[in-house]
Amino acid sequence: MSPRIPDSTDADLLSLIELPADLRRLPKRQLAQLANELRTQLIESVAKTGGHLAANLGVIELTIALHYVFDTPNDRLIWDVGHQAYGHKMLTGRRAAMTRLRMRDGPSGFTRRSESAFDAFGAGHSSTSISAALGMAVAAGLQHESRRSVAIIGDGALTAGQAFEALNHAGELQSDLLVVLNDNEMSISRNVGALTEHLTRLRSNPMINKLRQGGHTLLAHGGPLGELLNTTRVGLRDGVKHLLGVTSLFEELGFQYFGPIDGHDLGTLVDTLQNLREQTGPRLLHVVTQKGRGFNAAERDPVRYHGVGRFDPKIEPQPAASGPSAKTWTNAFSQWLADQDDNEKLVVITPAMIEGSGLAEFGRRHPDRCFDVGIAEQHAVTFAGGLAAEGLRPLVAIYSTFLQRAWDQVIHDIALQNLPVLFAVDRAGLVGPDGATHAGSFDLAFGQAIPNLMLAVPADERELRTALDLGTELDAPVLVRYPRGDCPADLGGEPPTTPFGLRVRRAAETPADSLLVVALGTKVATALNASENLPVTMVDLRWAKPIDWAALAPLIENHAGWMIVEEGSKLGGIGATLIATATERGLFKPVMHLALPDVFIEHGTRNECLADGGLDVGSLNSRMCDFLRRILPARQPCNATP
Amino acid sequence: MSPRIPDSTDADLLSLIELPADLRRLPKRQLAQLANELRTQLIESVAKTGGHLAANLGVIELTIALHYVFDTPNDRLIWDVGHQAYGHKMLTGRRAAMTRLRMRDGPSGFTRRSESAFDAFGAGHSSTSISAALGMAVAAGLQHESRRSVAIIGDGALTAGQAFEALNHAGELQSDLLVVLNDNEMSISRNVGALTEHLTRLRSNPMINKLRQGGHTLLAHGGPLGELLNTTRVGLRDGVKHLLGVTSLFEELGFQYFGPIDGHDLGTLVDTLQNLREQTGPRLLHVVTQKGRGFNAAERDPVRYHGVGRFDPKIEPQPAASGPSAKTWTNAFSQWLADQDDNEKLVVITPAMIEGSGLAEFGRRHPDRCFDVGIAEQHAVTFAGGLAAEGLRPLVAIYSTFLQRAWDQVIHDIALQNLPVLFAVDRAGLVGPDGATHAGSFDLAFGQAIPNLMLAVPADERELRTALDLGTELDAPVLVRYPRGDCPADLGGEPPTTPFGLRVRRAAETPADSLLVVALGTKVATALNASENLPVTMVDLRWAKPIDWAALAPLIENHAGWMIVEEGSKLGGIGATLIATATERGLFKPVMHLALPDVFIEHGTRNECLADGGLDVGSLNSRMCDFLRRILPARQPCNATP
Repeated sequence: MSPRIPDSTDADLLSLIELPADLRRLPKRQLAQLANELRTQLIESVAKTGGHLAANLGVIELTIALHYVFDTPNDRLIWDVGHQAYGHKMLTGRRAAMTRLRMRDGPSGFTRRSESAFDAFGAGHSSTSISAALGMAVAAGLQHESRRSVAIIGDGALTAGQAFEALNHAGELQSDLLVVLNDNEMSISRNVGALTEHLTRLRSNPMINKLRQGGHTLLAHGGPLGELLNTTRVGLRDGVKHLLGVTSLFEELGFQYFGPIDGHDLGTLVDTLQNLREQTGPRLLHVVTQKGRGFNAAERDPVRYHGVGRFDPKIEPQPAASGPSAKTWTNAFSQWLADQDDNEKLVVITPAMIEGSGLAEFGRRHPDRCFDVGIAEQHAVTFAGGLAAEGLRPLVAIYSTFLQRAWDQVIHDIALQNLPVLFAVDRAGLVGPDGATHAGSFDLAFGQAIPNLMLAVPADERELRTALDLGTELDAPVLVRYPRGDCPADLGGEPPTTPFGLRVRRAAETPADSLLVVALGTKVATALNASENLPVTMVDLRWAKPIDWAALAPLIENHAGWMIVEEGSKLGGIGATLIATATERGLFKPVMHLALPDVFIEHGTRNECLADGGLDVGSLNSRMCDFLRRILPARQPCNATP
Repeated sequence: MSPRIPDSTDADLLSLIELPADLRRLPKRQLAQLANELRTQLIESVAKTGGHLAANLGVIELTIALHYVFDTPNDRLIWDVGHQAYGHKMLTGRRAAMTRLRMRDGPSGFTRRSESAFDAFGAGHSSTSISAALGMAVAAGLQHESRRSVAIIGDGALTAGQAFEALNHAGELQSDLLVVLNDNEMSISRNVGALTEHLTRLRSNPMINKLRQGGHTLLAHGGPLGELLNTTRVGLRDGVKHLLGVTSLFEELGFQYFGPIDGHDLGTLVDTLQNLREQTGPRLLHVVTQKGRGFNAAERDPVRYHGVGRFDPKIEPQPAASGPSAKTWTNAFSQWLADQDDNEKLVVITPAMIEGSGLAEFGRRHPDRCFDVGIAEQHAVTFAGGLAAEGLRPLVAIYSTFLQRAWDQVIHDIALQNLPVLFAVDRAGLVGPDGATHAGSFDLAFGQAIPNLMLAVPADERELRTALDLGTELDAPVLVRYPRGDCPADLGGEPPTTPFGLRVRRAAETPADSLLVVALGTKVATALNASENLPVTMVDLRWAKPIDWAALAPLIENHAGWMIVEEGSKLGGIGATLIATATERGLFKPVMHLALPDVFIEHGTRNECLADGGLDVGSLNSRMCDFLRRILPARQPCNATP
């Protein structure tokens, strides 16, 4: 079955539109045609670059309507997460650049202030838009500027506590803020939480639907009942709404609630937004959209088509997840999980990343022991603490970048009470196309500072399994971190002699004339590659905390110098601890610490990003050679580069 | 006017009660007398030790009723924050120990699992109780245990996003969980947010109050309308509630909502809790209490009497805040703020710490530019980002320990966008009686890893003002950290020569025969005291990031050895960066890094805690002497200790 693609023969409107000002010159009746063209070009564009497809197809009409009604960029549109802003980018001067989406020097896959004046606030992590938009609304008020602030947030992002904190504050301040709730009934996975049920009740309320007969809502057109519903926030309107059984959570928090309206009906969208633009105070418009709208395969399976690789738009696209055939770290973790069937104490928790974290199969087999808590990292960690306090063995599967939302809970609820929670931290280190917002740069630096928390940095699948096994047995919190990308099965070398012991992966023949390289996690394979034919002893640290000083100290002692390679922040990193500890102990040897530099690294391929950080094979080899020349000038160790 | 204190001549019930099992043998009619006795003894106890007074007086009856109705410790009571659990401690075997409350080896001021089987989950930071209790409820279900989980959470704590995340998850799971909302209409300060207004509407609903005529609620006694209200979650009950205009946010999230009931009426409390104990699914009981109940001064001014020092129970207690007459760091910050009247771009944000952070005066003078966002650290930071994006100069005043809730927002919304937000981080380092949950141990370790973020560590008031001034001028995020306690006005020494430059506070006569001590922040004064009469050059680093290497490297070079002293985590700390950087540059000198060890430090006085960490004057002096003897054995520098 071939996908339904809008006919593109009439594609001539879009070419006239460089900026939203051009869009605003179109008559309203032409907007539907423009949506058609934008959707076609978006599919063609993502077909060439890969990227987030389904979410963007869902907001084509909403994007057009917002730029049509609001005076952007003077009025501020704040897109939550930002991965649904491709259409927005294409209407704000970046259409040609979309051929390099998420590539080095091309547009980011999210909104970025440095990229365009139309990107009012950068995004990448969910649920920040209402906070930022409220700040902007307050700033406009304080500075007596008449600009408007609009946050566009998905129903999935609403489950994060920060969104609630912001709604609560906005409801009190009564600032001039419009929140557009883009309700597509899912985040990346099927949405979860009681809120989902609440939104379903709002969507399906028969009275509201009855009021909407005739193709247009009373909200947009302001008939007598619509007026009644809209006139005052408290009092009569509330009474009527209560009678109809349509009170909403948002009204309880001080917002005016409007909707739900059809997010693919441009007429309704434009009319409603024009009405709402002229009102004041905090107001929320509930817009119902369909993820993947206009592309059959994505409509049918928006989870699978959340993110896609390149594809031929005439045939079904390949989801990004099913790209290379090599086993990824996530796959390896999944397979380990599949082997835990006899551990009935194991309970798995994820903040909205069932698929991304490789939990789908476990969830199918053990639905009672697999909890998707929604985008709610803080709750996920403390919830795990409650489970652990009762003798279960919770495993929190989380991306490094999203764990940043929950460090207080790791410290306060887990580590301080020394509860045995296992953190399976995926996407640790640089991630490539998703860029700086998604880089897992800080888990080692933050994690090592926390008492009781142990840190495993497996280098291959065998070590991953060993670390996870140990993590389910120890009576303490354990964090196991692994990166995006392919997972080597077994890098070989000497086996470790103690549970937290290091491994010598390759021993130099004459240590005194050689360099000791201590690599962490994924950098072990890179460093092994980079040091072939070099006089190097390659050590795999295995555990970043505790550190196997009994084995490490003599190795440092008997080599000419040492180097640490880790894919984490250099400042505050494990390497700094290693060097500082050795130096305090009087182990004075030439040393070099290669780690992520003190900058945010731009998006690009994972290799480009690694090269930026000086952590790809080529960079490592060249730094090793430089260092060897310095510490062993007589030996001329680097005649050939690998 | 003397305070109203319950008559204690009839105090004989309390002495019979060592554990809740004893309590449960009392007839219900005697509980009011017991409450009277418990309140009297609580006041007498806090009079001797200081501590949280007002919150504990408010929950005396609730505490008794919970232990009377529930089979503790088999049933789990999870107290949010835990600072209102004094009564709970006194009924669970710790009455005698209360004379050492918050002191070394005495009970913690919060709940702690290691302290008692009745402390089901440790607390200290707010808004974690529902997450933990839900985890425990799920664990009971999975393990087929019939125990019950009860979370007791204040209305202030509900404003934190994590509480909402947990409600949302609990509403979906429909686990057997009771949430008791202890609504005293304030957190520490007056409560904020739209939620407050919502709770007020629930409390003041005339229909509900009418139904409650006759002294007992229908909810407790199950009359016909009560039954109607309780029978089914959806359907008729909801319809009736909607008609009455009493739907609640909690019902929208899948909870059964009960109340509000009078939290000082033991009969109603016990009856209602007994009813609710027998029901299933997520349910919320709204209990209205009065902070400071039963003690005149605290009832009149619960903000002032949130925490108190020691006092004579016959006269008015002294609030803890007005203890020593020396100027605290918070005072010094306040005074700087008072001098910013001509900076109309300055906007101050606090997550519920107007008084603690010293913002009350600024808030009075500039109510339009002072935002208390409630217990909502994540929102506070991104909200500041929105303000900064629009050209204002937001200052987030926050405790180090609470900033742990918002590091993702610091990284993602502030540092990545290089927005000029100034963080005034109070209570950095050890805090003393509040113990490990409130220690500010991690801000330097976490902060230094984040690109673009600059870290100031002022050592005296003069430097604090300089750092804050610079923080409002730089086009970048700046974090200024300072501790609890007294702030020296000016520690003297050479002035800095560049904005981020270090200061030599005292120069040794012969550097080659002396120790270089590099101290950060509050440790500068301690190290100056500890090194009097020692051959030491005392350097005040002033900025932990960027580091003034131009000045520091030659100083390291020309001294016999060097020592770093910081009141922050040793692992991942600034000292590790200093040593690692120096070593990478080939500056091999004996070095010692004194910082907070890799353990959670128990509560005690701030000095006891500092001694535990090896960071008090005595410890520093002794470590300096040890080190001097090692690096300068011929010089015998330590004949006399100061």
